[in-house]
Amino acid sequence: MLFSTELQNRIVELTGAKPLCWESLTWPEIQSLRDKGETMCLLPLGATEQHGPHLPVNTDTVFATACCAYASAKMQTLVLPAIAYGCSLGHTDQWPGTISLFPETLIASIREVATFLIRTGFTKLLIVNSHWGNTSSLRCAIDRIRFDNAGRFSIGLKNSFEFTRSIWGQFIDDGEDFHANRAETALMMYLDPAAVRLDKIVDDPDRTAGKVFTYVVPQTSTNGLTGHPTRATAEDGKKLFIEMGEALSALVKSARTEQPPIEWYAK
Amino acid sequence: MLFSTELQNRIVELTGAKPLCWESLTWPEIQSLRDKGETMCLLPLGATEQHGPHLPVNTDTVFATACCAYASAKMQTLVLPAIAYGCSLGHTDQWPGTISLFPETLIASIREVATFLIRTGFTKLLIVNSHWGNTSSLRCAIDRIRFDNAGRFSIGLKNSFEFTRSIWGQFIDDGEDFHANRAETALMMYLDPAAVRLDKIVDDPDRTAGKVFTYVVPQTSTNGLTGHPTRATAEDGKKLFIEMGEALSALVKSARTEQPPIEWYAK
Amino acid sequence: MLFSTELQNRIVELTGAKPLCWESLTWPEIQSLRDKGETMCLLPLGATEQHGPHLPVNTDTVFATACCAYASAKMQTLVLPAIAYGCSLGHTDQWPGTISLFPETLIASIREVATFLIRTGFTKLLIVNSHWGNTSSLRCAIDRIRFDNAGRFSIGLKNSFEFTRSIWGQFIDDGEDFHANRAETALMMYLDPAAVRLDKIVDDPDRTAGKVFTYVVPQTSTNGLTGHPTRATAEDGKKLFIEMGEALSALVKSARTEQPPIEWYAK
Amino acid sequence: MLFSTELQNRIVELTGAKPLCWESLTWPEIQSLRDKGETMCLLPLGATEQHGPHLPVNTDTVFATACCAYASAKMQTLVLPAIAYGCSLGHTDQWPGTISLFPETLIASIREVATFLIRTGFTKLLIVNSHWGNTSSLRCAIDRIRFDNAGRFSIGLKNSFEFTRSIWGQFIDDGEDFHANRAETALMMYLDPAAVRLDKIVDDPDRTAGKVFTYVVPQTSTNGLTGHPTRATAEDGKKLFIEMGEALSALVKSARTEQPPIEWYAK
Amino acid sequence: MLFSTELQNRIVELTGAKPLCWESLTWPEIQSLRDKGETMCLLPLGATEQHGPHLPVNTDTVFATACCAYASAKMQTLVLPAIAYGCSLGHTDQWPGTISLFPETLIASIREVATFLIRTGFTKLLIVNSHWGNTSSLRCAIDRIRFDNAGRFSIGLKNSFEFTRSIWGQFIDDGEDFHANRAETALMMYLDPAAVRLDKIVDDPDRTAGKVFTYVVPQTSTNGLTGHPTRATAEDGKKLFIEMGEALSALVKSARTEQPPIEWYAK
Amino acid sequence: MLFSTELQNRIVELTGAKPLCWESLTWPEIQSLRDKGETMCLLPLGATEQHGPHLPVNTDTVFATACCAYASAKMQTLVLPAIAYGCSLGHTDQWPGTISLFPETLIASIREVATFLIRTGFTKLLIVNSHWGNTSSLRCAIDRIRFDNAGRFSIGLKNSFEFTRSIWGQFIDDGEDFHANRAETALMMYLDPAAVRLDKIVDDPDRTAGKVFTYVVPQTSTNGLTGHPTRATAEDGKKLFIEMGEALSALVKSARTEQPPIEWYAK
Repeated sequence: MLFSTELQNRIVELTGAKPLCWESLTWPEIQSLRDKGETMCLLPLGATEQHGPHLPVNTDTVFATACCAYASAKMQTLVLPAIAYGCSLGHTDQWPGTISLFPETLIASIREVATFLIRTGFTKLLIVNSHWGNTSSLRCAIDRIRFDNAGRFSIGLKNSFEFTRSIWGQFIDDGEDFHANRAETALMMYLDPAAVRLDKIVDDPDRTAGKVFTYVVPQTSTNGLTGHPTRATAEDGKKLFIEMGEALSALVKSARTEQPPIEWYAK
Repeated sequence: MLFSTELQNRIVELTGAKPLCWESLTWPEIQSLRDKGETMCLLPLGATEQHGPHLPVNTDTVFATACCAYASAKMQTLVLPAIAYGCSLGHTDQWPGTISLFPETLIASIREVATFLIRTGFTKLLIVNSHWGNTSSLRCAIDRIRFDNAGRFSIGLKNSFEFTRSIWGQFIDDGEDFHANRAETALMMYLDPAAVRLDKIVDDPDRTAGKVFTYVVPQTSTNGLTGHPTRATAEDGKKLFIEMGEALSALVKSARTEQPPIEWYAK
Repeated sequence: MLFSTELQNRIVELTGAKPLCWESLTWPEIQSLRDKGETMCLLPLGATEQHGPHLPVNTDTVFATACCAYASAKMQTLVLPAIAYGCSLGHTDQWPGTISLFPETLIASIREVATFLIRTGFTKLLIVNSHWGNTSSLRCAIDRIRFDNAGRFSIGLKNSFEFTRSIWGQFIDDGEDFHANRAETALMMYLDPAAVRLDKIVDDPDRTAGKVFTYVVPQTSTNGLTGHPTRATAEDGKKLFIEMGEALSALVKSARTEQPPIEWYAK
Repeated sequence: MLFSTELQNRIVELTGAKPLCWESLTWPEIQSLRDKGETMCLLPLGATEQHGPHLPVNTDTVFATACCAYASAKMQTLVLPAIAYGCSLGHTDQWPGTISLFPETLIASIREVATFLIRTGFTKLLIVNSHWGNTSSLRCAIDRIRFDNAGRFSIGLKNSFEFTRSIWGQFIDDGEDFHANRAETALMMYLDPAAVRLDKIVDDPDRTAGKVFTYVVPQTSTNGLTGHPTRATAEDGKKLFIEMGEALSALVKSARTEQPPIEWYAK
Repeated sequence: MLFSTELQNRIVELTGAKPLCWESLTWPEIQSLRDKGETMCLLPLGATEQHGPHLPVNTDTVFATACCAYASAKMQTLVLPAIAYGCSLGHTDQWPGTISLFPETLIASIREVATFLIRTGFTKLLIVNSHWGNTSSLRCAIDRIRFDNAGRFSIGLKNSFEFTRSIWGQFIDDGEDFHANRAETALMMYLDPAAVRLDKIVDDPDRTAGKVFTYVVPQTSTNGLTGHPTRATAEDGKKLFIEMGEALSALVKSARTEQPPIEWYAK
Repeated sequence: MLFSTELQNRIVELTGAKPLCWESLTWPEIQSLRDKGETMCLLPLGATEQHGPHLPVNTDTVFATACCAYASAKMQTLVLPAIAYGCSLGHTDQWPGTISLFPETLIASIREVATFLIRTGFTKLLIVNSHWGNTSSLRCAIDRIRFDNAGRFSIGLKNSFEFTRSIWGQFIDDGEDFHANRAETALMMYLDPAAVRLDKIVDDPDRTAGKVFTYVVPQTSTNGLTGHPTRATAEDGKKLFIEMGEALSALVKSARTEQPPIEWYAK
């Protein structure tokens, strides 16, 4: 149920395996995995947010979910149900489709999800986030979770658009500020071709260069997007997605055995 | 992306149409629907919660999503992304798999989702909930949303297990208190056959009859379920699901044109 | 001080005893009761809320208090001071007299009252609620209290209008949605005759049948009430009150010795 | 229903009238009073809190209620239902009987009560508080209410033990720090003679003189009281109560016509 | 960095020593002081708030800081960084310069500062407050901190304008309600002469005498001040400051060895 | 009073002017500046946080304050009182000296400061932050402030360690993760030479390279610092500080006339 059968098939093609979805398991199965040492989870963070005239409002959720599915399939690591409502206040209420939580609510949600994982015996959580606007709320939540549980629970945040420098470079190659740009459009062309309104693709320049203050999107974009989606190709999208999936898989591999540099426990 | 292609195909078979998913639309498409008067949405509420040894932890989310998909397909009404983390405190941390928000966080989430709908021009929201434990938080949220917006925004809550008396009767025919029981198991046998661990189905009786206090699940169930799932059949599940889908479709039909009995506006 | 001497006399007549009011005891007396095993309390929940043109705004508080007084007198169980401000957002600010808390504040109040009971050695709390609008907030509070204290503290909620099916039947015999209706008016005619403005009694029909959304009272009632109070008699009120008092007494009797079906403790 | 018939009779004897209780009125009656200009209310604030071995835990609520009843009867001003759970954290959980809210919850409660008064057309609220521990929470609430509503809503706080310097002098004549002391015991001997356990009255000295830090009661009292209740007489209690009732009546008289020194309105 | 070199020099002249500022120490130095038994801190509370046409908006912060500096220098007690944003809602937004927190935020800030002190091994905190408007928030915070930590952490609040009766007498000798009055102006003439706009000093009378309700400053003052600053002299300011510094030093001396009257520990 | 006379003298030497401190002005002066168009403020954000064995706990506050002082002096822009307690949860309670707020409290503080600025007629706020741990809380606050006030209030955040790429390069030239490292030590050697315990300077390597999870400082550092402070010189510190001061001055210059790329107003 995590994602469409088509996408699942694509993941199987690419990785040779199916993702290991928390939501599709029973409690004895989850308990059994835990007892065998699979005490790490991935949590995909998306958004419900306008993505310009050519991409659907679930674009970020697709990215987070698909990356986690890839890594989960490849590494057989657990992936939790995605959070589809994030913090998109920066997009305001200018363009219908955006639905945003306030930061305090996203912080609380993450803390409570982590709390249940901790209470039920899990020890590592890697948040995989595909929406820039979630980042500060996620970091606030992490800050508190670490403070309360350091040494007993490891938590991290990786933004899918910056898993590696190479990936980051591809995301910003049409402008420092981006939204529904070349890279995002290319990814969607590969991951969910039917979702891309090819006839609606137009570009909108990055207007934030050199600005001191930080503006909401209707102050910087005429149509909700920033970047050059007209340059996108499905081929680039496939290549970028595989790079992202491999990068996350490598992170998962490291994370599984990672220990804190110094042993220390929160009170 | 809302649900598996298989389920989508089943919905198409049953209703002859595809659901109208908010998440798969672009902002101009959502705006256009809104401007043509499609100002109502369905919001599916599920849970990530143990459902005994034979059902996956996403069971409630499947129910809410599938009912909304059916009604959305049939009535071409908008369905929002599901909320997969609900309030499952009653299940405690006894059985891994459950991940619960606290009530205040679920209340805030619902209020914020509604706020964005209101701000972007939507006027009706029907919450379709499949998890009993969410009900009180949802009602608290609704109470406040109505207080602030009555006359400008209509909001309602329908629990999928009690769309009609007939449906309710089928849910409780193996006990007043139920969880992963005959009806729920039958529904999953039809909606997601691979998800049901047939070899793990056992019954656990309702131990709450005549109790004055309200107990958490580990105080009332030995394995996380309550009821007689051994009596479930996929055939019953299909029949019940269609009844639920039709019931919700009828509610949507009424809701579209429903006006408050008396015209009145919140300050 | 809990209620008028007249009502107290009536309770004495009906039950042959006086209620055992927490508020009228000293701490050594409460401690002594506790040490003898009287570790259960009743908490009456009312409201300050318009009740149409003929009933006072304390109607719900009278009901909760009087039922608790009856059961306390009969069973010599402790009854806490009533909470007179509940959640009445549904009544809005249309009719002066209503004073409402927001759900979050009622939830916090209940959690804090329970916390003090737990910290001072009490182990059972039965909330006796006479206002429908409080129910969801109370359930949210209970959900959290149980989660934190299951196995060490038992908590329950009984709405006075549905102590039994027979009582519920009498409350809704003039309409599914009710407020200041036949049953409530009859009860007040018996419990506080001077409080009923006989010359102001008019009926107002239930306008909610078949509605999908949930409306605030000014959207469903012209004068704040719903039902047929003109059909009320003091005689019916007396009969109904005794039935309610006896029903609560029976609940108290059960509650005193009730054990959770399965022994289990929250972490 | 606000207080016992005996106390009501005593108020009638002393003032020649009955108090005007919000709770006993219907909404059209409250509306009518409002429309005639009775836009002020008294809000009695008490506590549920140990008061030593000889006084009941509702002592402060009795004081606040009785003072308001006196002034309401004499001046025919509206008195709201008392809040019986205050902030008694200073008494801790050492002596059963105390039930305390946290300050944030009391602040929210007061803000919400005031909000409903404002929304329903009332313009003045005088909080009559008889529990020292409530004071700071009440002032926080007032601070915010004034900030949001200055010029449209007048709000004030009067502690019953310091209505006048003379009254204050009588409260502290057996020690600067007091609880269940001579004055409080004398008042209860008059207001509710049966409530005073005469055989349990003992003194406990003020141990706080010269202390820099502020301590909880179990750090300053051996039995929960501070002062010399053995010096109390009912006669002194009657005299003091009349002085308090008259003082509050005089405050109400002034308050009715009081205008802010300078006309100014909050944004 | 705590205050200007000039003020520091003045403190040195008056006390013969430099203050012991937490902020200027390294963690091993703070740890070493703690381990030698210096487990008490002073926390200066100021405000950023209009002080009439002749005093700067940091007036209260200067007072709190300077008093703490004096006592710290004289007694070699630790003084924490001042909190410069307090609760000034009573001053409203009428006069630019005021920046206020809401009470809940100040309460939370104080609780969190205390929490860190407790967690890092400190056992006594004396809050030195120079702004009346902070008092109720500070007391709310203290109430909770004591409740959670009594017996393990001592906390107190001293308002600088009422360290002693003599000091209080000097603050109110030009009116019961005061702000930027004779005493405050005199103190600033001594502590920061350049900060006093001598040519702007005018008087504004106390208009609150006999008022029942409590008003915001724009309702009681024409220019933001209350009192007779024209009567101020630097000489009086110096004398008053020394008296305040000595009074706080005496409090610190007592506090260092102070024990609770009765030994008792919070759960 | 903002900072020591010595530092003030240094600022005067470097810039030829004194900073324009909000705290040292009266309300008519602030009003007058505002009315002349000086509607922008700088808000310095520091921390009270362990900085290894050789730097004082106010290090970050010194940096934020000094940078703002430089730019304020040079550009005659208003600088608000610094916030000295930030979010330092990552440093935990391992090393005494650290005092941290929780993220929610810092978010609320910033929102309330901004609210008062907005209400009193200011239109631009630039937060100058010198502590990495504050960043996510600050961004959450900004997100909400923009959402509520876009088009009427411009807000931005600049971390002093990344005013420019060149500055960032100097901060990380001894390791990606840094705290009390070469650059910070050099800055303190110049800004407050007496504050640097030269005999305590030791290095501690960055242990975070390649880590997937994010750890608290006691899990990554043996003594609270990360980097190579032994390489620091006062000369480098002076050069870096001037570069930072100039960079911030340039930002202020731009900010003064900066307009949003597109004109748009929040509802």
